[in-house]
Amino acid sequence: MLTRNKGKPSVGRMAQPLVDALIESADELRISVADGPLGCRLVDAGAKTLGSIEAGRLLTEICLGGLGRVSIVPSAATPMWPYAIQVGSLDPVVACLGSQYAGWSLAGGEGDGGWFALGSGPARATYAKEDLYSDIAYSDDADTGVLVLETDAPPPESVVKQVAEATGCRPGALTFIYAPTQSLAGATQVVGRVLEVALHKVHTLHFPLERVIDGMGIAPLSPPHPDFVQAMGRTNDAIIYGGRVHLYVTGPADDARDLAEKLPSKGSRDYGSPFAEVFSRFKGDFYAIDPMLFSPAEVVVTAVESGKSFRAGAINTDLVDASFG
Amino acid sequence: MLTRNKGKPSVGRMAQPLVDALIESADELRISVADGPLGCRLVDAGAKTLGSIEAGRLLTEICLGGLGRVSIVPSAATPMWPYAIQVGSLDPVVACLGSQYAGWSLAGGEGDGGWFALGSGPARATYAKEDLYSDIAYSDDADTGVLVLETDAPPPESVVKQVAEATGCRPGALTFIYAPTQSLAGATQVVGRVLEVALHKVHTLHFPLERVIDGMGIAPLSPPHPDFVQAMGRTNDAIIYGGRVHLYVTGPADDARDLAEKLPSKGSRDYGSPFAEVFSRFKGDFYAIDPMLFSPAEVVVTAVESGKSFRAGAINTDLVDASFG
Amino acid sequence: MLTRNKGKPSVGRMAQPLVDALIESADELRISVADGPLGCRLVDAGAKTLGSIEAGRLLTEICLGGLGRVSIVPSAATPMWPYAIQVGSLDPVVACLGSQYAGWSLAGGEGDGGWFALGSGPARATYAKEDLYSDIAYSDDADTGVLVLETDAPPPESVVKQVAEATGCRPGALTFIYAPTQSLAGATQVVGRVLEVALHKVHTLHFPLERVIDGMGIAPLSPPHPDFVQAMGRTNDAIIYGGRVHLYVTGPADDARDLAEKLPSKGSRDYGSPFAEVFSRFKGDFYAIDPMLFSPAEVVVTAVESGKSFRAGAINTDLVDASFG
Repeated sequence: MLTRNKGKPSVGRMAQPLVDALIESADELRISVADGPLGCRLVDAGAKTLGSIEAGRLLTEICLGGLGRVSIVPSAATPMWPYAIQVGSLDPVVACLGSQYAGWSLAGGEGDGGWFALGSGPARATYAKEDLYSDIAYSDDADTGVLVLETDAPPPESVVKQVAEATGCRPGALTFIYAPTQSLAGATQVVGRVLEVALHKVHTLHFPLERVIDGMGIAPLSPPHPDFVQAMGRTNDAIIYGGRVHLYVTGPADDARDLAEKLPSKGSRDYGSPFAEVFSRFKGDFYAIDPMLFSPAEVVVTAVESGKSFRAGAINTDLVDASFG
Repeated sequence: MLTRNKGKPSVGRMAQPLVDALIESADELRISVADGPLGCRLVDAGAKTLGSIEAGRLLTEICLGGLGRVSIVPSAATPMWPYAIQVGSLDPVVACLGSQYAGWSLAGGEGDGGWFALGSGPARATYAKEDLYSDIAYSDDADTGVLVLETDAPPPESVVKQVAEATGCRPGALTFIYAPTQSLAGATQVVGRVLEVALHKVHTLHFPLERVIDGMGIAPLSPPHPDFVQAMGRTNDAIIYGGRVHLYVTGPADDARDLAEKLPSKGSRDYGSPFAEVFSRFKGDFYAIDPMLFSPAEVVVTAVESGKSFRAGAINTDLVDASFG
Repeated sequence: MLTRNKGKPSVGRMAQPLVDALIESADELRISVADGPLGCRLVDAGAKTLGSIEAGRLLTEICLGGLGRVSIVPSAATPMWPYAIQVGSLDPVVACLGSQYAGWSLAGGEGDGGWFALGSGPARATYAKEDLYSDIAYSDDADTGVLVLETDAPPPESVVKQVAEATGCRPGALTFIYAPTQSLAGATQVVGRVLEVALHKVHTLHFPLERVIDGMGIAPLSPPHPDFVQAMGRTNDAIIYGGRVHLYVTGPADDARDLAEKLPSKGSRDYGSPFAEVFSRFKGDFYAIDPMLFSPAEVVVTAVESGKSFRAGAINTDLVDASFG
């Protein structure tokens, strides 16, 4: 049985040069950088700035903690939507679940002025108190931190303070990058979660994460929409109806077959409508939606110890067109 | 309404490291570097040198003023011609029109020994006297300059002097890169104009350029041809019959629909024959050819403020095959 | 007639920064680095380590002596196997035959404990005693050396000594990277030979190598298999039944047509079964297998001096599926 190396990379340290490069190229990427509460850095990548698809690509690489290669490629599977985002990862579990997953629930302020966002990216691993971290046996000790926030407003001082305390990073060593789902960069970085969504479902299905040793994913770039629910719907549909993932796993072939059969979105009760419709049907109650829906349309799972590959699901171009059109 | 950032990048400064890297790798790229008139640098990328497709890819990135990502990718749309050049840009208007467009008409020498070429690339923006520059509200103040020239001979001293005076750059800070259309690098960098050609037609159609906020394009690599007219015809056909562009625009959906309908080449009077035939039919008079022909075969225009996308035109593989075959 | 530049790049010097970067990122790539006999460096990229597809991609770039661009891309031609490795090269003859070809037969130790591997990569060119080197008129004088070995064990001291003496490099300046065909990185770097396999057959067909001036290749990533013969069979089938190459050549169009017709694998006597079956049929005697089988499934050859392109062969998805499935 193959085993993982002991030396785990630090997603925080690996992401920091990417954050510095993003900031260095702020003008070209049409994003803005400002000093924030307690001396933290705030990067507006699509709220009051235009941003760009390229900024979204870079945000995805930052979210992956420097452990991913992200590129914009032709989308052969969806000819009506000619470009896709492709995500490769050296270590999908650490990169996607240990860093990219939007798992840190952050809130601050009060009443209508309240601020809420899900934090994504390397600083989650320095905090490492989400339940997920005991399952993946990973945490980081970087002294700089970055979070990507799918929202249109910067975090208030109370949230900056909370993140600093939780991670042990000085506030001045923290960067918060925010972009709403409606923006070019925001939409891009959400679709760039195609591999992470697969990994998260792998975890939900109780397949042992340490057996996932490599993987790649691709999903068509969804066109932005000014309405949040439609924008979010499209980014989800890009993955649910247009995403394709290849995972490499260790362990018995039967387990890989079982995983492949359960993994694609089409096994879900709520499969078959654009996500914005599903969301409305459940009156905006995310937790009422079948969690099995959140997964790529098509998967290949290769069991490297037996050499067998299993394929399930399929790209649903009709639903991609219905959602994006 | 979204607005552009004030801080515009300098295409000249952003391109310079790419020029330095090109020169550094001259042997590997099979191009040559020489001292030219008044101390300028001359790079032969395909006249007396072999050059390479990779050199052409780099020339494209230089032409885009460092604001583009250019890659050679599989061409799913043209299976007979398996590779394509893909161009993404952070800021298509500045990158493509402000830098890449071959808009600077340069001439020198006399009689049969006269030299003529259209200059492309960042130094155009430091000159910034073409009419286009008042329309795009962009100019550059870089103190180094580079021009890419689609020709088989280096510029004479009079042209070097003219460019130095027009840009305010010392002649020793100027680099002229030349490659004929018949060469590997020359053909590649012309096909790499697929997005620029779309932007130029957007401008010709009087669509407000400031509303084009992102975009990507792809076109199949045309095989070189030893005859200039055939070579030029193929590079044009790669775009006119094989190019596909996705633009993201602000403003009303109706404007985006209208743009999408007018943008593809098939709306042109002269659509339907390989370009070299059209060129012969008009006895080589470029200005007699319908300007509407110069555009990609297929476009998607997404109106980001309404979330609507419009598609028009189609890849014409028969004409690509007729041209390239 | 176009001629090559005199200044040939040093594959050894160009590869060294890539080797250093590989070692720097060992933890992230899940490979391990150790001190070896006589002070050489040993990199285990898939024997006792997991390695990764990304490590395999980097190994391919190292094998190409820094003269290639290698990327993982969507595989439009084999929808059941969604990802492919694409190889572009600035100088296919030097990169593929002068460096990447696994042509250095190395053996050491004794009896059952004997060690044997074919060495691939830049150090071959510093040795340059294989017959091939007189044909390609290339050798290198780098004082560092790297070899990639398709095997599961590091070279013994006698082999390190032999390589040091043969190349004139100090043992401490040598790096040996090994990964078995069954591993993620090992399989990836073998499929990454798609262009090299074409070049090798070009040579076998006695087409003058100096006439091959550019080229690109792509082949689907084969899933690893724990059995060596099956693993090797799949990597070969990825090329033989799934590989597609485009070559650019100088010289008469008739020569290019003739080359295109002879180049694809389907002209071989042994075409038509998964490679592991062919191998078994010949009882594991490699030299009994028709050498014409070792070539890509489909080729396009463009004769740049006449502008004509010739196409032959075809991707055989049934055999790819039979091999990988």
